[in-house]
Amino acid sequence: MFADLWAELAPIGRADSGGYLRFALTEPETALRDWFRRQAAARDMPVREDGNGNLFAWWGDPAAGGAVLTGSHFDSVPHGGAYDGPLGIVSGFLAIDALRGRGVTPDRPVGVAAFVEEEGGRFGVPCLGSRLLTGAIDPAAAAALTDADGVTFGAALGAPPAGRRDDLLGALGAYVELHVEQGRNLVDRDAAVGVGAAIWPHGRWRFTFTGEGDHAGTTRMTDRRDPMLTYAFAVLAANKEARLRGAHATVGRVRAHPNATNAIPSTVTGWLDARAADTGTLDELLDALVKKVTERAGRDGTAVSVTPESVTGVVDFDPALAARLARVVGDGTPVLPTGAGHDAGVLSAHVPTAMLFVRNPTGVSHSPAEHATDADCERGVAALAAALEDLSCG
Amino acid sequence: MFADLWAELAPIGRADSGGYLRFALTEPETALRDWFRRQAAARDMPVREDGNGNLFAWWGDPAAGGAVLTGSHFDSVPHGGAYDGPLGIVSGFLAIDALRGRGVTPDRPVGVAAFVEEEGGRFGVPCLGSRLLTGAIDPAAAAALTDADGVTFGAALGAPPAGRRDDLLGALGAYVELHVEQGRNLVDRDAAVGVGAAIWPHGRWRFTFTGEGDHAGTTRMTDRRDPMLTYAFAVLAANKEARLRGAHATVGRVRAHPNATNAIPSTVTGWLDARAADTGTLDELLDALVKKVTERAGRDGTAVSVTPESVTGVVDFDPALAARLARVVGDGTPVLPTGAGHDAGVLSAHVPTAMLFVRNPTGVSHSPAEHATDADCERGVAALAAALEDLSCG
Repeated sequence: MFADLWAELAPIGRADSGGYLRFALTEPETALRDWFRRQAAARDMPVREDGNGNLFAWWGDPAAGGAVLTGSHFDSVPHGGAYDGPLGIVSGFLAIDALRGRGVTPDRPVGVAAFVEEEGGRFGVPCLGSRLLTGAIDPAAAAALTDADGVTFGAALGAPPAGRRDDLLGALGAYVELHVEQGRNLVDRDAAVGVGAAIWPHGRWRFTFTGEGDHAGTTRMTDRRDPMLTYAFAVLAANKEARLRGAHATVGRVRAHPNATNAIPSTVTGWLDARAADTGTLDELLDALVKKVTERAGRDGTAVSVTPESVTGVVDFDPALAARLARVVGDGTPVLPTGAGHDAGVLSAHVPTAMLFVRNPTGVSHSPAEHATDADCERGVAALAAALEDLSCG
Repeated sequence: MFADLWAELAPIGRADSGGYLRFALTEPETALRDWFRRQAAARDMPVREDGNGNLFAWWGDPAAGGAVLTGSHFDSVPHGGAYDGPLGIVSGFLAIDALRGRGVTPDRPVGVAAFVEEEGGRFGVPCLGSRLLTGAIDPAAAAALTDADGVTFGAALGAPPAGRRDDLLGALGAYVELHVEQGRNLVDRDAAVGVGAAIWPHGRWRFTFTGEGDHAGTTRMTDRRDPMLTYAFAVLAANKEARLRGAHATVGRVRAHPNATNAIPSTVTGWLDARAADTGTLDELLDALVKKVTERAGRDGTAVSVTPESVTGVVDFDPALAARLARVVGDGTPVLPTGAGHDAGVLSAHVPTAMLFVRNPTGVSHSPAEHATDADCERGVAALAAALEDLSCG
């Protein structure tokens, strides 16, 4: 049952905060990958790696083609919740158990995937595994990405990443990723499970504010070039510009240098996460923000540089597949867009893709408060099993 | 000569930034303490420790009483400059060389001190060594202070701190600390050396902003309780309130949790450094700031708590001593207040104390750009030698 399998993962990578530190290819995530191999072995599902850090457990030989893939990722944001990622992998194995339990023999191969570094929490680029698999990032550039300790992705992986795998992509007939909802749409609609039909365009931009490091006690206010002021202005401006446009903007990560109480910083770096319903709105938001912040930097005697770290246009999942999933899951199943990025968004450019969401009572995600009830997770497994059966049989 | 002795210190603890990482009782600072012992030994000056981490090299037996002490500290702020602290110690040894070179035999003992953890850069409390020596902090509380890795001050010291040393304090007749200026007052007055007569009241307050960690992409703007917004407001408000009052306020240190690009933070902590010409102004500044920030927190759905980490009232150095130093150094020597805290400020409650400042061409401090010319440093040594001679003879 769901609760038993889920309980095996609970202690792995759990921090004192109650949240998880499951960064890609670190010890806790490696323990989860080992767990994946054991689960696959227990089900006689051979595991193949794609040379990019992604794992695939197969029921049937994917070389047969038209394969139906499900899965998600193990890695977390820092102090993230338990469900974001692992729920899709656990549900994949349980859905296969359900199909086998009722004697289903699929006509096409069915697989469960564990993608690496979906959150970008260690190497900075989200969906790194699926980007490599699909050729959306250069393998040499990916290999050179570094974590906070200067370790490269290539070193963590133990080999140069293989990059785009046309053989594997060509064997896939559909990808369905199940995920905990990261908002309250399903709560508002009183539904345990929904179908994801689109991902908002979104991106991450690094804002670097440069001023002049100096003594906090002795430097006259008029002599200062304090980049923390420009940073603070940017945080408030991003919030305002997003609200004006019905978009989302967040500055959740900040780094000051030297970060000492009695020193005016020489640099402050802030990372902006922004998303909107369409690309035009997102572009407008960025343009307006950069203009305002540049003006403010002029008044503060600081400089600002803006570097896009990852920008993704709108993703419309396969409409036929989304409609089919909604039909299979049941009458009245909500069909929703999401503001969150997923490996499904990357794969959708190459494979008919859609998502299933499981209700999250608080809507909170990327936090220890992220939750789904066992009963709703069981409903998610049942919906995924129905979807896999529908897609792999007949 | 100054340049030769100074060059010995230049490589110790230097970071790639060009600044220094000389945290108290870490390897670079320990190397500097070893250098101190070698310098003292070369001058036949016995070194005594006070059981609090402070070192004293003596010319003459301090038990004779009426001792004249000079010195400063080796530790730096993160990526700080070369001069803040070490200049006072190097100048102390060179001033003694100068006195001996011209055959001065002092009537009272003369000492050079190296105080520990003046910046508070490792354990958070500035002037920790002089506070312990004078009983301004409880030794058990000091022993329990932790650094960023959880190491306690007691463990770093290797023993519980001894606390207040009345024997040592009672033996002191005067303390004169030489320091690089951390502003442009001497530049404006076209003087190489000045006398410090007072320290502005100053303090550090930790502001903790608590909201609700959540997903940056999927959480509606109206559902958020984002503490980064309240933090940003506080940064700008602190600046404004300080300017209105001719005071100084800085937020140079920030920590967000979980500090992930795609997560609304659950908490943001900012450290305020504020100083003003008098205590009433400083209190007003804090009151006004806390009131505004609390109102804003109400609008952001966040909570704010404010914890004073160290607050020091105005320090007026010994007026007679300051006037005597100005006379000894030479006609027209500027007599200045400073916004920076120093061990001299702590000692001044127990011993007649004043300071000497050496011109800093840019005024920049707590930064790799901090500087003093060799010629001005020589003038500082000459001024200190004149002061020590005047105070220890006759």
